[in-house]
Amino acid sequence: MLMRMSSLFLRTLREDPADAEVASHRLLVRAGYIRRAAPGIYTWLPLGLRVLAKVERIVREEMVAAGAQEVHFPALLPREPYEATGRWTEYGPNLFRLKDRKEADYLLAPTHEEMFTLLVKDLYSSYKDLPVTLFQIQTKYRDEARPRAGLLRGREFVMKDAYSFDADDAGLDASYAAQRDAYERIFTRLGLDYVIVAATSGAMGGSRSEEFLSPTAIGEDTFVRSPGGYAANVEAVTTPAPEPMSFADAPAPTVVDTPDAGTIDALVAVLDQVAPRADRAWQAADTLKNVVFALTQPDGTRELLVVGLPGDRDVDVKRLEAAVAPAEAEPAGDSDFAKHPGLVRGYIGPQALGQAQAAEGQDAVRYLVDPRVVSGTAWATGANADGKHVIGLVAGRDFTPDGTIEAAEVRAGDPAPDGSGPLELARGIEIGHIFQLGRKYAEALGLKVLDVHGKQVVVTMGSYGIGVTRALAALAEAHHDDRGLAWPAHLAPAQVHVVATGKDAAVLAAAEQIAVSLSDAGVEVLFDDRLKVSPGVKFADAELLGVPVVVVVGRGLAEGVIEVRSRDGSEARQVGVDLALAEIEQRVAALGTQR
Amino acid sequence: MLMRMSSLFLRTLREDPADAEVASHRLLVRAGYIRRAAPGIYTWLPLGLRVLAKVERIVREEMVAAGAQEVHFPALLPREPYEATGRWTEYGPNLFRLKDRKEADYLLAPTHEEMFTLLVKDLYSSYKDLPVTLFQIQTKYRDEARPRAGLLRGREFVMKDAYSFDADDAGLDASYAAQRDAYERIFTRLGLDYVIVAATSGAMGGSRSEEFLSPTAIGEDTFVRSPGGYAANVEAVTTPAPEPMSFADAPAPTVVDTPDAGTIDALVAVLDQVAPRADRAWQAADTLKNVVFALTQPDGTRELLVVGLPGDRDVDVKRLEAAVAPAEAEPAGDSDFAKHPGLVRGYIGPQALGQAQAAEGQDAVRYLVDPRVVSGTAWATGANADGKHVIGLVAGRDFTPDGTIEAAEVRAGDPAPDGSGPLELARGIEIGHIFQLGRKYAEALGLKVLDVHGKQVVVTMGSYGIGVTRALAALAEAHHDDRGLAWPAHLAPAQVHVVATGKDAAVLAAAEQIAVSLSDAGVEVLFDDRLKVSPGVKFADAELLGVPVVVVVGRGLAEGVIEVRSRDGSEARQVGVDLALAEIEQRVAALGTQR
Repeated sequence: MLMRMSSLFLRTLREDPADAEVASHRLLVRAGYIRRAAPGIYTWLPLGLRVLAKVERIVREEMVAAGAQEVHFPALLPREPYEATGRWTEYGPNLFRLKDRKEADYLLAPTHEEMFTLLVKDLYSSYKDLPVTLFQIQTKYRDEARPRAGLLRGREFVMKDAYSFDADDAGLDASYAAQRDAYERIFTRLGLDYVIVAATSGAMGGSRSEEFLSPTAIGEDTFVRSPGGYAANVEAVTTPAPEPMSFADAPAPTVVDTPDAGTIDALVAVLDQVAPRADRAWQAADTLKNVVFALTQPDGTRELLVVGLPGDRDVDVKRLEAAVAPAEAEPAGDSDFAKHPGLVRGYIGPQALGQAQAAEGQDAVRYLVDPRVVSGTAWATGANADGKHVIGLVAGRDFTPDGTIEAAEVRAGDPAPDGSGPLELARGIEIGHIFQLGRKYAEALGLKVLDVHGKQVVVTMGSYGIGVTRALAALAEAHHDDRGLAWPAHLAPAQVHVVATGKDAAVLAAAEQIAVSLSDAGVEVLFDDRLKVSPGVKFADAELLGVPVVVVVGRGLAEGVIEVRSRDGSEARQVGVDLALAEIEQRVAALGTQR
Repeated sequence: MLMRMSSLFLRTLREDPADAEVASHRLLVRAGYIRRAAPGIYTWLPLGLRVLAKVERIVREEMVAAGAQEVHFPALLPREPYEATGRWTEYGPNLFRLKDRKEADYLLAPTHEEMFTLLVKDLYSSYKDLPVTLFQIQTKYRDEARPRAGLLRGREFVMKDAYSFDADDAGLDASYAAQRDAYERIFTRLGLDYVIVAATSGAMGGSRSEEFLSPTAIGEDTFVRSPGGYAANVEAVTTPAPEPMSFADAPAPTVVDTPDAGTIDALVAVLDQVAPRADRAWQAADTLKNVVFALTQPDGTRELLVVGLPGDRDVDVKRLEAAVAPAEAEPAGDSDFAKHPGLVRGYIGPQALGQAQAAEGQDAVRYLVDPRVVSGTAWATGANADGKHVIGLVAGRDFTPDGTIEAAEVRAGDPAPDGSGPLELARGIEIGHIFQLGRKYAEALGLKVLDVHGKQVVVTMGSYGIGVTRALAALAEAHHDDRGLAWPAHLAPAQVHVVATGKDAAVLAAAEQIAVSLSDAGVEVLFDDRLKVSPGVKFADAELLGVPVVVVVGRGLAEGVIEVRSRDGSEARQVGVDLALAEIEQRVAALGTQR
């Protein structure tokens, strides 16, 4: 395979695209792999398409090796199945919806749980037909509020989605394990570092769920790890709750005047003045902060939620949203407060919140607290009156929340929930996600089979996704430097980039011969045969494009040598022309290319 | 490659789907290759996807061999480029339109002329960059009024679309010729009979245009052929116009009473009574029939058009629509006539039609005539009064139409426009379409390059489409019998179908060994290893699925023989078990499979 740059549909760019924040976006565009067609929607150019095909092939091969069977669903789907499972509504504005000429409702599928469920229902009827795992590599749509980072958060993207169908829970565990193993093989073959973390299942529903993250500082996902091996997406971290305490001897709460105590820091300072503690100075962790959010359900319903948490912590809105999904959360605004005059801004306390404390005939504002706020803990918190706080307010005695919520930020050094040590935080790109969906979709769509006793049982499902285009971007993040891309050999659009420099006809002829010979030998070759392009530009392009082995045929030819370098800078050697082919082929073989 | 039917995701159906009119639709669904997801929208099951991948591979290989470079555009596209070329409106209700969460207009692309044009504009700027031909194999959308015939007229389908870009007309001719050659190679490799016919270019615009049709009685397209080699889509047939005649000696027109002459047959009979000709009896071809249509433009504007044609011909609405594209045509209705009281239904004559005849200050009803209605021809036609016709009305003397139109039906025996003999009519499936688009899109979107003199010139383009999923359906139409599909070996989902019959463990073991050995030797094998399924059902499934070589391992095994048959019925032979593998491999090789 020989691509001549004189005719290849490629123009590299010297300037970064204006909207590019991350390296993969910047470099894939500059190197002419992709091109923006609309926000979050990209066109694949020849070099990009070659890399994508190689990534897809690895994903497909490992899926088949794991026993999954390939199918292909439409992207344009009718509303009904998504209505039956509630996702038509739950997806909210993230779903692209449209009508056909007969005014029937359609959508562009974000994932295909419903369609796979209905297909299996259509064809299968007995436990003997199971297990089956089906997959597709297909174009997906999601109307992201903020498409960004090129391929990392797009609105049209390629996904591998797989679904397993089993008659019982043990079967689901086995299917899940097989997919999990396949994912490990896929990311290993791709040469992509990954971390497997516990995850929440979001709008999908279901129980066990893990994410495969490619660790990188520019990742959108934050995850935690402990020395003892705990790993979780930050949304999935659970807070170890202390044991409830006795409050038999706790003093009664006292209301104190706290003028100008609008922040936790100010409150702590004021308390040290007006109500100093006997044992030590007040700390932020002694206070109970009550933060008011407005939740919007997918059907548009808006309701308030007050989150109570120790004053030394902030609410992490992503953790909050994971906890209240599919609702979206935002800080309550003036109009929200106007509807609830009982909430005294800056001085809200639990005495006025939640079902247990609601006055007769009055709507309770929902009140959930951080798991650390256990029965018997005493707090300094708002007194629901301007300029006043209360101290010694005891949970379980003076107030009873409506429940707990995981919404407080997780901090480095926090204990892992399984006792495996302090957590460290890092960031990553979500490249895979596997779920035990359970029976949610099968139940909603009536997928049952006869079990061994001839009884109808609901099928249990797993759902397994890989962001294929996103994995390609993660590869670009992992394999680049400030001069350009640096692909692993087996994913690069070519293995060898032959650069002919200078205007000497003999140089071009020699380069041509090397390029053709390599191509004939089965090597994928990119050949820079452009006339009137300076060596400097050619070298810069070679570094930008990222083909692993670069062969320079130029001035040295007069002395009978050419240069063979690695794109990653690990090697550069002058080689006699007569030995060049053998040297290059050996180098390519050493890179472990799968041809 | 070994697929075991005991676990393959496949269920064949005994019943035809209720909506299936044609064999490909019926059999692809019954054989479990595809499954309907919505009207005109299909899911690909494992066997179907395998065939589709093989068809795609051939298309891709020949495109690359012809020098085209592969890219991949999004299906979801912004409105603006399609607005610039007018297609946002011209496509009318055939376009799937939607809005994103910011209320921006998007569409699901029916073809990608605009995007390719903009991409080349983005990257290229000089004649030296050209020619370039780009292609993609991609999912397309068209909101058909009447999706039907399974894959033959769908709303989501796979197309190969290619576009050539040249600096001048000679370049376009060469690019067009290269694609035309590639198309011949593709359809030949697919094993699909085809006819190349002259075509109209429809909503695409442009000049030279040819269709590749797969001849079959169930085809939606009608085409004509002459003994001398003329071939055209019926919409593209031009009518040889006779020479204009002198009307110096023609008698003046006479109005005659023609009661109850509501049809052409009745009129001819009445004229023989009330105004007999001296030379011979009146014939339908002596009359001028004026048929009133309402045209709806894509922007919704509705206007009347009267088509005048010899009374022995009917209007062919598909030809009419090709002539008035992008407008749609339907017979005028009561409300249309109500707005034009000058049109006397059943007695409309050209004296009241067209610009030339319009009374002062009155809107003319547009009047176009068949090319046979040349100056000097005399006609019997309506007199624009109830119960009255006029005879001897001479074109060019007594009336002047607004122009001519190709809207009359073409009939077997009509002369070919190039004088190459009488036409015969046949039907076919449009599997490919190649256009010389010319400069329409480049002009609209500003795609110019510097020419050899440093002057900006508008680029000229070609557009080349293959309906990939439709070609697969055409293959099923061409290769089936009443028992099922019968794929050519190189496109079949497997080359060998091993059927184990009976309950004998030795039979299953022997069949297994053959299946595994073939698979190890690189043959694609479908192995019917299902227990508790009768031989009859297995044989019926083998005939339905259409794998070319069927190997039956059953009762004969006790005598040391198995049976090797062709799916097409051309051969069936008992072979000794020891020779079976060699025999099967030889048979597969003889089928010319490309593995």
